[in-house]
Amino acid sequence: MSFLTGPLPLIPQGQGRESDGGSIVALGGGHGLSASLSALRLLTTDLTAIVTVADDGGSSGRLRRELGVLPPGDLRMALAALCDDTDWGRTWRDVMQHRFRSQPGVEGSLDDHALGNLLIVTLWELLGDPVAGLQWAGALLGARGQVLPMSTLPLTIEGDVLRRTEDGDVFETISGQASLAAAGVRSNVSDVRLLPVDAPACPAALQAIELADWVVLGPGSWYTSVLPHLMLPQLRDALCATSAKRCLTMNLSNETTETSGMTAVDHLAVIRRYAPEFKVDAVLVDPSVVADKAAFEDAVAELGGRAVFGKVGAASGRPIHDPLRLATAFHDIFGEN
Amino acid sequence: MSFLTGPLPLIPQGQGRESDGGSIVALGGGHGLSASLSALRLLTTDLTAIVTVADDGGSSGRLRRELGVLPPGDLRMALAALCDDTDWGRTWRDVMQHRFRSQPGVEGSLDDHALGNLLIVTLWELLGDPVAGLQWAGALLGARGQVLPMSTLPLTIEGDVLRRTEDGDVFETISGQASLAAAGVRSNVSDVRLLPVDAPACPAALQAIELADWVVLGPGSWYTSVLPHLMLPQLRDALCATSAKRCLTMNLSNETTETSGMTAVDHLAVIRRYAPEFKVDAVLVDPSVVADKAAFEDAVAELGGRAVFGKVGAASGRPIHDPLRLATAFHDIFGEN
Repeated sequence: MSFLTGPLPLIPQGQGRESDGGSIVALGGGHGLSASLSALRLLTTDLTAIVTVADDGGSSGRLRRELGVLPPGDLRMALAALCDDTDWGRTWRDVMQHRFRSQPGVEGSLDDHALGNLLIVTLWELLGDPVAGLQWAGALLGARGQVLPMSTLPLTIEGDVLRRTEDGDVFETISGQASLAAAGVRSNVSDVRLLPVDAPACPAALQAIELADWVVLGPGSWYTSVLPHLMLPQLRDALCATSAKRCLTMNLSNETTETSGMTAVDHLAVIRRYAPEFKVDAVLVDPSVVADKAAFEDAVAELGGRAVFGKVGAASGRPIHDPLRLATAFHDIFGEN
Repeated sequence: MSFLTGPLPLIPQGQGRESDGGSIVALGGGHGLSASLSALRLLTTDLTAIVTVADDGGSSGRLRRELGVLPPGDLRMALAALCDDTDWGRTWRDVMQHRFRSQPGVEGSLDDHALGNLLIVTLWELLGDPVAGLQWAGALLGARGQVLPMSTLPLTIEGDVLRRTEDGDVFETISGQASLAAAGVRSNVSDVRLLPVDAPACPAALQAIELADWVVLGPGSWYTSVLPHLMLPQLRDALCATSAKRCLTMNLSNETTETSGMTAVDHLAVIRRYAPEFKVDAVLVDPSVVADKAAFEDAVAELGGRAVFGKVGAASGRPIHDPLRLATAFHDIFGEN
C-alpha cells in the first residue's frame, strides 16, 4: 500500500486502473456516500462502496414491493458517483439518474422511477446475482471501483417510537426506513433494529473490508445510512476485526429529520451505543458543526481515535460536502495515520 | 458498391465496420423486421433499419400515453437484432429485451414493460432527439448498423370497419394499431389511413433510402408494419424515387390476424392499391405460401419485378424466417440483379 503524501495525487479521469492509491472501502448510503465516493475516487483506483439495502421509500420501495428485489436506489447513486469522467460515462450516468415524469393528467405508473433502478433490477433478474448485476452496471458507466450491497437480502429498519396519549406514554413499533425517518428518530425512539437479525452480509463486502487499507464510514443519514453497517452482525464483526484503519466522517449539519436536536457528540454516542466494540482511527468533522471542541475531542478519544477538523463543506454554504475539499482532508488523514 | 457474388460472405461477428457489402435499408416493424435484419447483418456493415412508429399496444402504447413519446418497442427489437455478437452485445441485448413481471398479488405498474423501451425513452428525454437517442442505444449494444424511426412523430393507424347490424351494414372508424389488428383488418376494412396525414418522415431515413444500393421491405404484419412505410407521403416518395433496387419479402404465413383469408397475390394487390407508383425489382417468397405460382409471378410482374422462390422458413416448420436461409436468398438476389 502506498498513499502518496506529497501534493494531492489527483488521478486523471478516464484512464482506468493504472494508478493505485491504496485499497479503500467506503460504507454508507444515499447522498452522503455519493459525496465520499466523489472524493475518494480522486485518491485511489481500488475503491469499494458498501451500500445500505434497507430503503423502502420512493422508487426503490415500489420496486422492492412490486418485484421482490433489493432496493436499488442507493446502489445506483453510488455507481453514478463512480462513473468514468468521459462523454460515455457521463451520458450513461445521466441515463441511470434520469427519473420519469408522467404527463399532466395521466395516471402515472412510471412517475418518479429512476431508469438506473430499473436497469439494475433487470441485470439482477437476468443474472440472478446482485453482485454480478452491479458489476455490469459499473462496466456500463466505466465506474472507477466496485459497488456492493451490504447484504444480498433486502433489510428492514424498525424502531420503537414513544407516543404521548391521553392514557400516558406508549411505545409503538414503526417499521421501514421511510416511515421511521419521517417519524423523527432520535427524539423519541428507544431502540432501532435491523431485520432480519441474522441477515448475512454480502461475502464480497466482507472480503473487501478484510483486505482494505482504509475503511471510511459516513457521512449520511445517521440512523438509516450509517448505523445499519454497524447493526448487521457479520458486517460489524468485519469492521471491528479488519487490520484496515478506520475513518468516520461526520455530517455537515446535525439538523436532519432523523437527528433533530442532536449535537455532533450525540452522533458519536449513537455509534458507541449500537457498536461499543467499534473503534476508529480518525473522525473527520467540519468545525462548523462542533460547538464544544474539547467535548468532541473527548468523545472521539473514547472511540479510540483523533478528531480531524477540516473545512469540507461546499463554498456555497449549503450543507453538502465539496468533493475536492473532502479529498484533500482524506488525503491528509491517510498520509498522517 | 460491391456485393460479393461468390460464397456467402458472412461477416465475422464483433469486428465492427471494416467490411462492406453495399448500403442496405430495411423497412418494417416487429418480428418481421428483426428477421430481415438478422439476415442482412450477415451481408453488409452498412445497414439502416427504418421502423414503424404507429404501435399503440402493450408496453409501447402505455409509454406513448403516459410520457408522450414515440412508441419504442419496434425500435428496440430492431436494435436487439443488430447487437454485437459478443458477451457485451448479447448481455445488453438481453437487458433491453427483458420484461418485468410483477409478483403475484401485487398491483403491477411495471408489469410487461421492456427495460429497453424505458432505456430508449430515457435517452430521448435526455437528448431531446429521437435519432441521437437511438444512436446511443445502438452504441451500447455495439449494433451493426443504425436504427431510425420512420417519422419523429408518433403515428396513428385507423381504418373503417364494416359492422353487420340488425339495421344493415354500417362502417365504423377504428383507431389504433392494436384495436385495428384485433378487429381483423382485411376481411371487413374498407380503408386504412396513417395519421397525421402530413406527418414528416425522419430526414435521416429519407437520406438513407436515397443513398442505398438495396431497399428491403417486409416481411411483417402487412397492414401495420409493412404498408405504413408506403402510406407516409415523404417516405413513399423516397422509396419510389431512389435509384436503389427494391426487394419485397413476403410473409411465411398468409394467415395472420390481419390477413386472414388473403392469398400471397392478395398481399401484392394491397401494395398496388395503396402505392400504385411503387415498383420492385424482386419479390422473395417461400414456395409454401404460393398456391398458384403463375398467378403470383404475374402479380409480381405488375409490380415491375421478378418472383424469387426460396425456402426461407425455419427448419422447425414454424412460420418464422431462418436468418441464414434468408441471408442466402438475399445474397443471391443482390448478386443477380
